[in-house]
Amino acid sequence: MGEKGVKLFGTWVSPFSLRVELALKLKGVEYEFMDEDLQNKSQELLHYNPITKKIPVLVHNAKPLAESTVIIEYVDEAWPTGYRIMPQDPFEKAQARFWAHFIDDKCLKAVFPVYTSTGEELNKAVKEAQETLKALEKALEGKKFFSGEAIGYLDIVAGWMPYLIRMTEELAGVTVVDAGTLPLLNAWFDDFLDVDVVKSSLPPKDKLYAFNRARREKLQSGQKAH
Amino acid sequence: MGEKGVKLFGTWVSPFSLRVELALKLKGVEYEFMDEDLQNKSQELLHYNPITKKIPVLVHNAKPLAESTVIIEYVDEAWPTGYRIMPQDPFEKAQARFWAHFIDDKCLKAVFPVYTSTGEELNKAVKEAQETLKALEKALEGKKFFSGEAIGYLDIVAGWMPYLIRMTEELAGVTVVDAGTLPLLNAWFDDFLDVDVVKSSLPPKDKLYAFNRARREKLQSGQKAH
Repeated sequence: MGEKGVKLFGTWVSPFSLRVELALKLKGVEYEFMDEDLQNKSQELLHYNPITKKIPVLVHNAKPLAESTVIIEYVDEAWPTGYRIMPQDPFEKAQARFWAHFIDDKCLKAVFPVYTSTGEELNKAVKEAQETLKALEKALEGKKFFSGEAIGYLDIVAGWMPYLIRMTEELAGVTVVDAGTLPLLNAWFDDFLDVDVVKSSLPPKDKLYAFNRARREKLQSGQKAH
Repeated sequence: MGEKGVKLFGTWVSPFSLRVELALKLKGVEYEFMDEDLQNKSQELLHYNPITKKIPVLVHNAKPLAESTVIIEYVDEAWPTGYRIMPQDPFEKAQARFWAHFIDDKCLKAVFPVYTSTGEELNKAVKEAQETLKALEKALEGKKFFSGEAIGYLDIVAGWMPYLIRMTEELAGVTVVDAGTLPLLNAWFDDFLDVDVVKSSLPPKDKLYAFNRARREKLQSGQKAH
């Protein structure tokens, strides 16, 4: 890449690198995607992010940045024209950041046990996930997307839910989000998955499901071994 | 408070509400401090932050915000004149947010075991804390403060370290940060603690030490009971 180029280190299966891809695409920024093998990370990734060694890492004008939520805000500011990802009002911006924190801190942790559990544990995990996601519905009241009439920062941050919760439901044979239990979130799942840039950016369904079916079985057999 | 007022729900011993106090003071914003008892939270706090129920919560023009890092950024934007807390350059701003995330995610977790451990565990905890803090020194290279010549966002976020690590060292009888092991951080500890607004905002030393001596003993006896 030229020094002026934009390079994104991610992996096809990561919802965190997908966040950055969505931000770059919404802004119309051309970028080169470096698909990392997380079991065998490239020297270039380790060079650019020696601190946490995690993807995604965005390299812009030879300067690297890590953490998906940090990168999304940077992309919106570094390319200030065109699509607006962040709310402009300070209070709305702060609220979006609060909910982003809630999603990364609480929702991820609440949904993961649904992915890994079986039997009675699974039923318990579904109820607890619904309880946590219920809080998030507050942020959708009176709106089509978290960001209003079009997707923005918080939709991007929450973007793993529609396709990964739907997938988890199918793999585990349960229902977490439907019109009865979480109506606003359920409607948002459909609306988000219907956005063109989202549709064209999601990982191939067959490949994603095969990868996660195998990963889930491995995690479950690991738990049984304890 | 009038509808136009600023109210901060916190507690005297919390480094997270201290962050918000520092931001408000740097901006010259008048506020009312509501000292919460975390064992018996007020109805007002639960009303304003039903989602996480945590302090700090800032109420401005009757609208509440939670999460200390979110509130600091809000304060800087909602009162745009005067002292600048956030870097203005998008890349520097993103880097500051990355390190803030590192401090809350890694440094807090790395230092806490020094606070709670004894014996051989304590020595191990000190070494691991030093290892994590070593990474943070990168953010201080060539600068007096994380934010340059004066304190800013990242100094505020990291602000628990100078007084709480110094206290922990004294209570536990160990050294974590000194000129030999972590020279940049050690110098920053002194510089930060010498800033007027910091000096006048820290909790009273005797009260803080007494509170933490008791808390530490309770945590340690709890661990032994397992």
